[in-house]
Amino acid sequence: DRHGAAAGLTQGWHLSHTTRQNIRNSELAPLGMRAWQIKDELRQGARKPYKELIDVSSADPHRAGVKPLSFVRQVLAVCYYPQLAKSDKLPADVRQRAQRLLGTCAGGSAGSYCPAGGIPEIIDIVCEFISRRDDGVPSYPENIFITSGAQRAFVEILNILVNTLRSPITGVLTPCPSYPPGNMAVVMLGGAVVPYYLDEEQGWELKIDELHRALESAKGVCDPTVLYVINPGNPTGHVQSRKSIEEVIRFASEKRLFLMVDEVYQDSVFEQESRFVSYKKVLAEMGPPLSHTVEMASFHSVSKGFIGECGLRGGYVELVNVDPSVMRNLYTLMSRDASTTTGQLALDLMINPPQPGDPSYPLTAITLHISDLRVLEVLNSLPGISCQPVKGGGYALPRLHLPPGAIQKAKEVGMLPDYFYCSRLLEETELCVGAGSENGQRESTYHIRYRQSSDEVLRRLTSFHIQFMKDFS
Amino acid sequence: DRHGAAAGLTQGWHLSHTTRQNIRNSELAPLGMRAWQIKDELRQGARKPYKELIDVSSADPHRAGVKPLSFVRQVLAVCYYPQLAKSDKLPADVRQRAQRLLGTCAGGSAGSYCPAGGIPEIIDIVCEFISRRDDGVPSYPENIFITSGAQRAFVEILNILVNTLRSPITGVLTPCPSYPPGNMAVVMLGGAVVPYYLDEEQGWELKIDELHRALESAKGVCDPTVLYVINPGNPTGHVQSRKSIEEVIRFASEKRLFLMVDEVYQDSVFEQESRFVSYKKVLAEMGPPLSHTVEMASFHSVSKGFIGECGLRGGYVELVNVDPSVMRNLYTLMSRDASTTTGQLALDLMINPPQPGDPSYPLTAITLHISDLRVLEVLNSLPGISCQPVKGGGYALPRLHLPPGAIQKAKEVGMLPDYFYCSRLLEETELCVGAGSENGQRESTYHIRYRQSSDEVLRRLTSFHIQFMKDFS
Repeated sequence: DRHGAAAGLTQGWHLSHTTRQNIRNSELAPLGMRAWQIKDELRQGARKPYKELIDVSSADPHRAGVKPLSFVRQVLAVCYYPQLAKSDKLPADVRQRAQRLLGTCAGGSAGSYCPAGGIPEIIDIVCEFISRRDDGVPSYPENIFITSGAQRAFVEILNILVNTLRSPITGVLTPCPSYPPGNMAVVMLGGAVVPYYLDEEQGWELKIDELHRALESAKGVCDPTVLYVINPGNPTGHVQSRKSIEEVIRFASEKRLFLMVDEVYQDSVFEQESRFVSYKKVLAEMGPPLSHTVEMASFHSVSKGFIGECGLRGGYVELVNVDPSVMRNLYTLMSRDASTTTGQLALDLMINPPQPGDPSYPLTAITLHISDLRVLEVLNSLPGISCQPVKGGGYALPRLHLPPGAIQKAKEVGMLPDYFYCSRLLEETELCVGAGSENGQRESTYHIRYRQSSDEVLRRLTSFHIQFMKDFS
Repeated sequence: DRHGAAAGLTQGWHLSHTTRQNIRNSELAPLGMRAWQIKDELRQGARKPYKELIDVSSADPHRAGVKPLSFVRQVLAVCYYPQLAKSDKLPADVRQRAQRLLGTCAGGSAGSYCPAGGIPEIIDIVCEFISRRDDGVPSYPENIFITSGAQRAFVEILNILVNTLRSPITGVLTPCPSYPPGNMAVVMLGGAVVPYYLDEEQGWELKIDELHRALESAKGVCDPTVLYVINPGNPTGHVQSRKSIEEVIRFASEKRLFLMVDEVYQDSVFEQESRFVSYKKVLAEMGPPLSHTVEMASFHSVSKGFIGECGLRGGYVELVNVDPSVMRNLYTLMSRDASTTTGQLALDLMINPPQPGDPSYPLTAITLHISDLRVLEVLNSLPGISCQPVKGGGYALPRLHLPPGAIQKAKEVGMLPDYFYCSRLLEETELCVGAGSENGQRESTYHIRYRQSSDEVLRRLTSFHIQFMKDFS
């Protein structure tokens, strides 16, 4: 074997996924892959209980059949093919917006390179958005990077924070349940995931006692320097109170932790009494010394904002109190990210949507509600299922109280119990939901994860669930 | 300083750029930044010799004012706003293509997530393209990754190849002149650049003797395991012969080097007697054992293909003979790349353009010729300037034979001589070309780099150059 230059140099980390398809479709996970197959089978005329597959396992609204907002798409179409602006079929605000956006592109074309780090005019608009959102707390262009989505930005920031040369290795305090690509990034970069469990009984609240316990558990294993929080919760649907955020910030300060704050669901708070408050705002209002010292990165994305444009790859990260020498390194790292023009244009459209009075306003005032009280009522009335209130975010995460027979059967077929349930649900009703084990859950608890609760989803789930419980009790 | 988690953890590599703007605009380089300023000054009514700035320093056609191909933009517009397909104003092949492409997207929307690694249908089309290009040499989907441009892919592959834990560090044999982001990536990942000089007098040919010399020079400094080649040359305009490629492959095999082959200008060969031949094809035709052992990665991009869509971020990398264990790691690394739908759609349009008989064919049969014989004649007739034939690629790289007075003056003002020349050219004629020192050049030689030779560019360059030479002789 003379040619093993690359083989000899691999850095030794191992993967839980071993086949090409598994890794290629990591966004889909194995259930999602089977869902694709079923879709194909249905297309080829296979006879199944339902003629149409519904996939609510991922937070991808368009995959699930939600129509894109026409304002967003009209502006993008004009940006790519400016001749369309000549037609008066498109609303005036669409044409004006496209013209303004093209003015920010070199040579007036969405096909020219963007400055690394983002188009300056769009960075300025991000600052205005943040400052407006935070009731005037200022945001500075030099602290903003436009990125090709939150996940990519998360990896680059973590790249700076995870030190593989230090012993013990860097630990990242991570919520459980969590957003799986976040955990995967920690492991891939050579860090250690230190889980802290969210309190399901209290609507998946983050408890400071649990953070202390998690930190203690890391002793001798790794050196925790990062605290990863997700607010609104993904996939829990929890929305943190201002008081809870203050506590977390004090904890981060006390323990000298860098705060990685995933706030991509900030647009998606739909419970009446909840309100999204950003970590940045709370930190600023806590005043010195905290407001000048706690290091923080906050992420947002066009995939998860109200426009739900996952395929366009756009987002930003705002850094707070980060040391100038680190910022310099970050500028270089982020400049490798080469975000697309499309993603940046979409970012502008998300953070700066049409206002009342604009021709396109009525069409954009649609919000994606995942939950209403009736759904929770139905779920909680079923035997062996309970669901915490969903205050925001992209998912509901109901708990399954599986009968011992079902757990035993899952063991026999070599599946995790929640995965077994989801797999049966998919095969029997052409409804794809996610297994809680993908996000992490307390031992011996089982959950399913799904977005968007149309009546049809609820109908299929209810009839399957009742039969499943019967079969195994 | 209680909060230095990030600062304490930075990994110690240093940057030649120290200001935010320098790094943010690394794509532009300092001359490009000054060009932006001049553009602003002109817009604000400043009085200058020319009313319009021309920037031919970067290989970004749209920035330089080239119009995008309407077929590409029409299809993208329909993909984003499918209602446009209802109008019969757009050609039938545009509407059909958009429909086919939307069929490859989950939920029929360009706004849904793509499988990591790329949309399977588009990967298949890439394989067909490569196999057609290589006269039937097969290409396999499992060896293709769709990426958000060649630069990103280059970094991820290099990530696997550069081992920072090994001593001495990994060396990468790199052409000089070169593509600057390639060198930057090597250094950022902790590798060492080992330059091999291209032979300017022979039209920037790659000479095997020089590869041997370069390899020898690395002894005791680093451990070269990678050979980076660029064909067609960037920024040299050279196109390698089949014989030269065979020699390079034999050298790589003998010295056990991984071949990184930048072939992004494969569409851009315009000299009559030159023809692009891919490394993959030559390797396959050399037969065993080489064809089964030499490890290789070949890059392509929608930025540099004939569509020139830099802002869309799309491309692919094909791997050859790479160990399966390395491929598994790569699947994971590449899955972080999260390429955009837009970039992938554009890739389809580039590798699968309209054919004769299609309504859009006449409009896409435009190619971007950088050079014609007349231009070389003009350049070579000027005192103190000489230019090798430009057979392909994105640039011409004329050599400046600067008078000692100019070199002395540059020293006095603290500039590199070629940069001094470019800076004067920009200030006096509103024409921005690149300095050869950005790409690397043999000591005491000076070059300028520019794309697209409109008559106007040549006029400004000629009149400036004659005056400059007079001023300093």
